[in-house]
Amino acid sequence: ADPEEGRKLATQCKTCHGLDGIAKIPVAPHLAGESQIYIEKQLKAFRSGKRENDMMSVVAKNLTDQQISDLAAWYQSIEITAKMPE
Amino acid sequence: ADPEEGRKLATQCKTCHGLDGIAKIPVAPHLAGESQIYIEKQLKAFRSGKRENDMMSVVAKNLTDQQISDLAAWYQSIEITAKMPE
Repeated sequence: ADPEEGRKLATQCKTCHGLDGIAKIPVAPHLAGESQIYIEKQLKAFRSGKRENDMMSVVAKNLTDQQISDLAAWYQSIEITAKMPE
Repeated sequence: ADPEEGRKLATQCKTCHGLDGIAKIPVAPHLAGESQIYIEKQLKAFRSGKRENDMMSVVAKNLTDQQISDLAAWYQSIEITAKMPE
């Protein structure tokens, strides 16, 4: 898995999920820092039809295993910090 | 939706997802800062069986709409920041 390749591929994700994995729209989840295994599993589930979403079912259909692996590596490589409300 | 109630309910989520929404295990996604609409949709999809996961299908089955709304409000209330690799 190559995060640099994933970063390039993420140009097709960034309108909704952000290049840095902070989503631009409420219906899309933040992906920043999500694990390799989680992102791969979801993209493959969208690709196979096991998980369904109007947008993601279309996008994932054309991704190869390598591209999925690289995309997951990119989003996993982003560090996140969380701050709970007081 | 009451984030304070959601925080209390999140005691049943925190072993995997963290009370602050930073996941403790790679197979579970971070939930910190995810939107109300996204979290509600996913929990309802797990509850109905539309989305499947061994753990979440069981957990979600017992949640009411109000509890789902409160849990979503809690995780949405957490602020996240992302830092991309250099």
